[in-house]
Amino acid sequence: MSILVVGSVAFDDVTSPSGSVKNILAGAATYFSLAASYFTQVRVVAVVGEDFGAEQEKVFQKRGVDIRGIEHAKGKTFRWGGTYGENLNEAKTDFTDLNVFEGFKPRIPTEYEDTEFLFLANIQPTLQAEVRRKMSGVRLTGCDTMNYWIKGALAELRETLKLVNVLLINDTETKMLAGETNLPRAANKVLAMGPQALVIKHGEYGATIFFREGAFGLGRHPFRAPTLPIEEVKDPTGAGDSFAGGFMGYLASQKELTRDVLKRALFYGGVMGSFAVERFGTERLQSLTREEIDARFQVFRELTHLE
Amino acid sequence: MSILVVGSVAFDDVTSPSGSVKNILAGAATYFSLAASYFTQVRVVAVVGEDFGAEQEKVFQKRGVDIRGIEHAKGKTFRWGGTYGENLNEAKTDFTDLNVFEGFKPRIPTEYEDTEFLFLANIQPTLQAEVRRKMSGVRLTGCDTMNYWIKGALAELRETLKLVNVLLINDTETKMLAGETNLPRAANKVLAMGPQALVIKHGEYGATIFFREGAFGLGRHPFRAPTLPIEEVKDPTGAGDSFAGGFMGYLASQKELTRDVLKRALFYGGVMGSFAVERFGTERLQSLTREEIDARFQVFRELTHLE
Repeated sequence: MSILVVGSVAFDDVTSPSGSVKNILAGAATYFSLAASYFTQVRVVAVVGEDFGAEQEKVFQKRGVDIRGIEHAKGKTFRWGGTYGENLNEAKTDFTDLNVFEGFKPRIPTEYEDTEFLFLANIQPTLQAEVRRKMSGVRLTGCDTMNYWIKGALAELRETLKLVNVLLINDTETKMLAGETNLPRAANKVLAMGPQALVIKHGEYGATIFFREGAFGLGRHPFRAPTLPIEEVKDPTGAGDSFAGGFMGYLASQKELTRDVLKRALFYGGVMGSFAVERFGTERLQSLTREEIDARFQVFRELTHLE
Repeated sequence: MSILVVGSVAFDDVTSPSGSVKNILAGAATYFSLAASYFTQVRVVAVVGEDFGAEQEKVFQKRGVDIRGIEHAKGKTFRWGGTYGENLNEAKTDFTDLNVFEGFKPRIPTEYEDTEFLFLANIQPTLQAEVRRKMSGVRLTGCDTMNYWIKGALAELRETLKLVNVLLINDTETKMLAGETNLPRAANKVLAMGPQALVIKHGEYGATIFFREGAFGLGRHPFRAPTLPIEEVKDPTGAGDSFAGGFMGYLASQKELTRDVLKRALFYGGVMGSFAVERFGTERLQSLTREEIDARFQVFRELTHLE
């Protein structure tokens, strides 16, 4: 099956304790599509500027990603610069130049209209809702958001949440969205806003999926997947988007969407996130094999499963 | 088999968003022994004052804990008061009155000398080392410590670490002890100081056990156990000591100390920690059944195991 991601394509400057890179291809839609491309056919809707050319297109094409939905606009591509200190959990933003991304109006090519799975990466919530409404035939919609929208566009975001099946956010975002400091209570409040499942990403501690009662089959409990303890995290940028790509890509590769499938998807999300941070930018995600991915899946299993 | 814990017995005043209690029986050795008592015979070495009487003794005795090693001194028992805000991960200490604990010199009763397992709760590292040297016949020694000793008695602590098999500390303590911000690298540095295994407690995210190469059998990877997402944490005090009680108690109940056994022990640690925080003080730990414990163990399994 196929999945459509709508989000940002960018060029990043990143500095971390492991080094420094400039002008590398990045953005949520890029990380997402490369990660998902190991599981399913990926389609992208995004906007880029005149500085995005054949070299960048090749990165997507080598992974079989359909980029007919990438709009080329006059001006420069979105650019972001960030620096990570010893605490790799948070970047200091050095600059954000939205450029062509500022006026992004997602346009869905006709050829994409039959896409079965949809991922709304972190963009303005009203745009997310518009895309979701246009893609009326999708089987499952995943969605990301961030503090900026929770603070500044909460009413719009709550409308969007009524239209999505799975929301993927982190601990802080969950607590802020729910107005509640206890995580499982916050999770239940967020589920009451619309999604059938909520994936909370805990950074180096993995992720937990909470299910709305009765959604995706029966079961009383949430489910937790680990991350791999990594001795050298070179660049945490895009870990969350790569997680989403592994999670959603795996779902799109499955016939049935049961709780067991969503649990395995949570593991694949962690696996793709763990690969992403091993190199700067999308380098590691460009050159994986499905064998490497499944071998790491096994490592994740060994990390958490009793004999 | 039997386990000896050496540590504090205290009276606590605790305030949390769920309420307030005064003068409740607490202290690391208390939480530890009640938690471990569901798995094995527990013996305690501690010091109490004249305010500790039959009522407190009964709490231990009802769980079959041998308290012949609790020394009764002139004066008052150790008292601590703390307040938890919405962020339950950290308490604001309202007061610490060491009282009789200030001059604590652990004395091991002759009847305890054949104890096979030893847990050195958080006390001055030199005292921990002295106890460990006296208990020359033990099969396995577990050890806790805290930032206060890592900062103020590092040389002494490093001597103690040469004598222990398993160190149980949290993320911050691990990084501080290793002088290293990356957790797996910090873990390896701590293992190089002596312990064969390091259990890092991540609070609401569970715990990870790292093994020294070749220790407790073969295997390449660490292992991670979850905690239960709990909707109302009434009192986080003693969660770490209850974790240690479940972990060490389970080990002491096993014939062989393989990696598989240590992994299951990590789950039992999480289970006992999760019970402890459901009520103020040791209330929940006083009235459990082994059936309830094993049922929760199964919940932990469902939380983390793919079908």
